[in-house]
Amino acid sequence: MSWQDKLRQVQPYIAGEQPRIQNLIKLNTNENPYHPGIKVKEAIQRFDASKLSLYPRPDADELRQALADYHHVSEQQIFIGNGSDEVLALLFLTCFNGEAPVLFPDISYSFYPVYCDLYQIPYQKIPLNEQFEIVKEDYYQENSGIIFPNPNAPTGLCVSLHMIEDILKHNQESIVVIDEAYVDFGGESAVSLIEQYPNLLITQTFSKFRSLAGIRLGVAIGSQEVIARLYDVKNSFNSYPIDSLAQVIGLASMQDSDYIQDNAQKIIATREYTKKQLKKLGFEMPDSKANFLFIKHPHYDAQTLFEKLRERGILVRYFHQPRIEQYLRVTIGTQQQMEIFIEEMKKILEEEI
Amino acid sequence: MSWQDKLRQVQPYIAGEQPRIQNLIKLNTNENPYHPGIKVKEAIQRFDASKLSLYPRPDADELRQALADYHHVSEQQIFIGNGSDEVLALLFLTCFNGEAPVLFPDISYSFYPVYCDLYQIPYQKIPLNEQFEIVKEDYYQENSGIIFPNPNAPTGLCVSLHMIEDILKHNQESIVVIDEAYVDFGGESAVSLIEQYPNLLITQTFSKFRSLAGIRLGVAIGSQEVIARLYDVKNSFNSYPIDSLAQVIGLASMQDSDYIQDNAQKIIATREYTKKQLKKLGFEMPDSKANFLFIKHPHYDAQTLFEKLRERGILVRYFHQPRIEQYLRVTIGTQQQMEIFIEEMKKILEEEI
Repeated sequence: MSWQDKLRQVQPYIAGEQPRIQNLIKLNTNENPYHPGIKVKEAIQRFDASKLSLYPRPDADELRQALADYHHVSEQQIFIGNGSDEVLALLFLTCFNGEAPVLFPDISYSFYPVYCDLYQIPYQKIPLNEQFEIVKEDYYQENSGIIFPNPNAPTGLCVSLHMIEDILKHNQESIVVIDEAYVDFGGESAVSLIEQYPNLLITQTFSKFRSLAGIRLGVAIGSQEVIARLYDVKNSFNSYPIDSLAQVIGLASMQDSDYIQDNAQKIIATREYTKKQLKKLGFEMPDSKANFLFIKHPHYDAQTLFEKLRERGILVRYFHQPRIEQYLRVTIGTQQQMEIFIEEMKKILEEEI
Repeated sequence: MSWQDKLRQVQPYIAGEQPRIQNLIKLNTNENPYHPGIKVKEAIQRFDASKLSLYPRPDADELRQALADYHHVSEQQIFIGNGSDEVLALLFLTCFNGEAPVLFPDISYSFYPVYCDLYQIPYQKIPLNEQFEIVKEDYYQENSGIIFPNPNAPTGLCVSLHMIEDILKHNQESIVVIDEAYVDFGGESAVSLIEQYPNLLITQTFSKFRSLAGIRLGVAIGSQEVIARLYDVKNSFNSYPIDSLAQVIGLASMQDSDYIQDNAQKIIATREYTKKQLKKLGFEMPDSKANFLFIKHPHYDAQTLFEKLRERGILVRYFHQPRIEQYLRVTIGTQQQMEIFIEEMKKILEEEI
């Protein structure tokens, strides 16, 4: 057996491109168009660089307490990781150790099957229906765990808490994970169900709602028992995943939630404006409650539109994937950015005729 | 099978304590007593907080290039992770996938067996000899990988590049990892051997030499082939592990290497002073080339000394572990801190008589 044979073979997740083009209107990775707030800025300015010679607080306890207060749970019900991707990666390793497959929708966050491949966890993709909706009965079967985003990505569609509760009731022998990366743009959080269902785990992120994609903070909220086991695995992986500056920045953001909530309201208003304009241009789309739209035109090829937008300095996301190869995912930017987007899209459609 | 049965059971690594006591002389987690430098400070001051709404550069390419230049290798031979603990965690998952055990010393970084337990990798601890030295012939047996720190922790002892080359020659079918967390305090790096041995992987960290434990930056240096596979696994785990501020801070540190090298020289001088003073007090120790000493007194119990130092506001590291339960690991602080340490130790020994 050569050393090459001892290396793990995986098909990695491919994130949206991050090109360094000036003046690009970047609508491809669901970033928040507004800055993270004056309190974050001040926290960085005030930060004493000499402290960096010391290790950070291992469990980011102040930030953990602030999150607990925000969500009305105890500190022991909060887990913090290096971005919600790391939270998800550790959660797959911690929670999904049965023989049966882990279940998630066929159209969903495409990192889920990558985690399964990495850890050799069996999984089954459950097709959404024709309207891209989750059909709860499909999840009433033996499994080693269930995970889906709510709102779902890249569709933006929400399921009700009532449906989540039905899925929980039918799955009391598995961990059910609701990935709430986009919940703050019009969805309803399932945090209220945690007291009742110790097998429910919720993930959230500072990347979208809190405009902090650059700092990498992800969160899991669940029962003390599950959170403690997540920390055991985290402490078998990396003692100090959250650096000292990230802890201070996260805390400053938690103290600026009103400003951040206002930004979310602006994004929601711009989303609804963009929906309306796109429908006028003949686009079809699910009724997104996230900070992106998932759009399709009956007469124009999605990949062609993607390329023509790119030529005009507007970057959106195109997925080479079955069922959705005629869709584009468009992040909601500022009102001004979306007006330019609509303007340019109009020109492209006119050209194409 | 209940949801609890699907949770992974592990015995996590326990890091040195990080108490929040004012005026503590903290000599327990091998942190650098000097601040990370004026360039790091300026980089934080200059940082534009509004950039944090965007994702970081996925592979920290500027920092990667700076590290490549520093080590005289290509960018494709550098891997960057969220602290060297994450680098090690991903490396165990990527590189050690054989049937035979992974080999490492019995007295070494105690995170190694934790990673093995986490991923269910078989391992075998190879006893150091009576002088705490690595015996190279012990590593001439079938294995799925070899890892040891050089200098070793917590002993501080180095092996020669000649010995490393012998181990490489006898292990051309496994990845051999040299963990160089402490190499810059008097050891000799094996980076020069990388061209010749594509199965050699070296890990380093910004935490000790560069006074940046608070920011979490770890590095692996190896052949393009191994580094590419590490990135595949990293991209199956977390797309953006290095946040934007950490990238900027790391880069600033790379541009301040002369200042950092001066600090290392000061630490080395203080270490040699401390060795001499401790020997005068009757302590025995291996000849450490790291930023810590591993000390034992023939007449005084190590745990008692640990506790008495703590009462006097000095924190060192004590390990409840076979073979080393009569040793203390003492980080080298500033000259002034070490003079206080010696002073207090004298008083304790006098009291005990």
